[in-house]
Amino acid sequence: MGRIIGVGLGPGAADLMTVRAREWLGRARHVAYFRKRGHPGQARRIVQGLLAPTAVEHAMEYPVTTELRFDSVAYNDVLARFYDEWAARLLALTAHDDVVVLCEGDPLFYGSFMHLHVRLSHRVAVEVVPGLPGMVGCWAALGMPMTWGDDVLTVVLGTLPPDRLVAHMQAADALVVMKVGRHLAQVRRALDLVGRLDQAWLVEFGTMPQQRVRRLAEVDPDERCPYFSLVLVHGHGRRPQERGA
Amino acid sequence: MGRIIGVGLGPGAADLMTVRAREWLGRARHVAYFRKRGHPGQARRIVQGLLAPTAVEHAMEYPVTTELRFDSVAYNDVLARFYDEWAARLLALTAHDDVVVLCEGDPLFYGSFMHLHVRLSHRVAVEVVPGLPGMVGCWAALGMPMTWGDDVLTVVLGTLPPDRLVAHMQAADALVVMKVGRHLAQVRRALDLVGRLDQAWLVEFGTMPQQRVRRLAEVDPDERCPYFSLVLVHGHGRRPQERGA
Ligand SMILES: C[S@@+](CC[C@H](N)C(=O)[O-])C[C@H]1O[C@@H](n2cnc3c(N)ncnc32)[C@H](O)[C@@H]1O
Ligand SMILES: C[S@@+](CC[C@H](N)C(=O)[O-])C[C@H]1O[C@@H](n2cnc3c(N)ncnc32)[C@H](O)[C@@H]1O
Repeated sequence: MGRIIGVGLGPGAADLMTVRAREWLGRARHVAYFRKRGHPGQARRIVQGLLAPTAVEHAMEYPVTTELRFDSVAYNDVLARFYDEWAARLLALTAHDDVVVLCEGDPLFYGSFMHLHVRLSHRVAVEVVPGLPGMVGCWAALGMPMTWGDDVLTVVLGTLPPDRLVAHMQAADALVVMKVGRHLAQVRRALDLVGRLDQAWLVEFGTMPQQRVRRLAEVDPDERCPYFSLVLVHGHGRRPQERGA
Repeated sequence: MGRIIGVGLGPGAADLMTVRAREWLGRARHVAYFRKRGHPGQARRIVQGLLAPTAVEHAMEYPVTTELRFDSVAYNDVLARFYDEWAARLLALTAHDDVVVLCEGDPLFYGSFMHLHVRLSHRVAVEVVPGLPGMVGCWAALGMPMTWGDDVLTVVLGTLPPDRLVAHMQAADALVVMKVGRHLAQVRRALDLVGRLDQAWLVEFGTMPQQRVRRLAEVDPDERCPYFSLVLVHGHGRRPQERGA
């Protein structure tokens, strides 16, 4: 019986993959990855040139449902069926072989892989090769200490309701906002409200060829940023003994 | 003029290093790393067998000061002088060569490298090769989704005052507590207070040969755990549309 292996690919640059990930890619006979229909897919792009020529590829294409709202119950049913179907197909493949599932960043950190994981881990051996999360590549792009001293790091999604965004931003020292995409204006407003807009950075396509880094305050609030973008605020670097100062 | 390169080594397993880190290690002529006097040092241990035979090693040994409390102002002065001195020595080396500084996990994430970074980055080119943070290796060891849906991830240090620990634990979905070492009992109490002790895991030496994973509730509260240990609580995997339920 084969296994399902979720392989983390890191933030985008091919040499920010782990050595273990490279080894799995080179020997995988079945390689599956999510992508939008009609797009090459970021995970597949990262591994370009690294798969064995004989590898069988399984593109798991998200169902396109223009008539359904992204956050509707109906859309969610469509998605759940999609994950069910692919879980069954990958499970069938494990009768003969291991199946490598490509994952952007780290598989267990806000990844689509987890929808397969919950459906499969009680039925077949599921392994994980951890990867560098996208945010770690993004703060390396800025080249400044992200957390030190007794800094608290908080990671939130830009899709949170505004009041929850504000509360978490207020409590955080260092901050990462993932999935900013269509929510840039709301993320910006929340940061402004807690007085930290001036310290915030927008990183698009971190460590990829198209990488772009800007101060968030200088970005047009109505800009729609790409899927691969996140907002970072660095920690204070407060040392414990300075707390009373 | 040479550069200072902070190279992230990942959580401990040699094959969880990035390909870029491996390349730097193989060609580095000067390699510096922190360690306790009389100990081989974890960073040095991870790269065993990966350095060029001709590499010059610089062990930056923390000053041993048994007569000073770890959190005293005097101890901090000793530490600050230690970082000043090594910053000056590494800077001198860059007159002829690049200097690679080995960093456990990721260099910019609660790393000692940052004490060199703040002292040097305005005087010489400082580069960073990001690494897999220790926590990512630890949650891979548990093999369960860490964050999904709209989970908030909070990372705190076990050294925080108890009231701040509790407040952050209360606000978090997924949680990582770093530097638990001598603070295990206090971390345990705080988790118990917010009703999440039963969901917490203690991971020691994540991804290293001595790796050990236990439910925190089953660990003796008076145990003193090793430096390389952290506490994890997984997120709820709450999907946005389930919030009203
Ligand atoms: C579904 S989450 C997947 C996260 C991934 N598993 C990881 O470990 O980073 C996708 C979000 O991650 C962030 N992200 C991941 N990689 C990124 C990169 N290279 N540059 C900018 N943002 C990135 C973006 O906010 C994006 O919307
Ligand atoms: C000074 S911080 C350095 C963190 C490092 N820069 C990183 O990215 O993980 C040291 C703390 O990281 C945590 N840690 C790092 N690697 C670990 C591992 N392999 N297993 C358990 N804990 C680890 C422990 O809590 C330890 O006290």
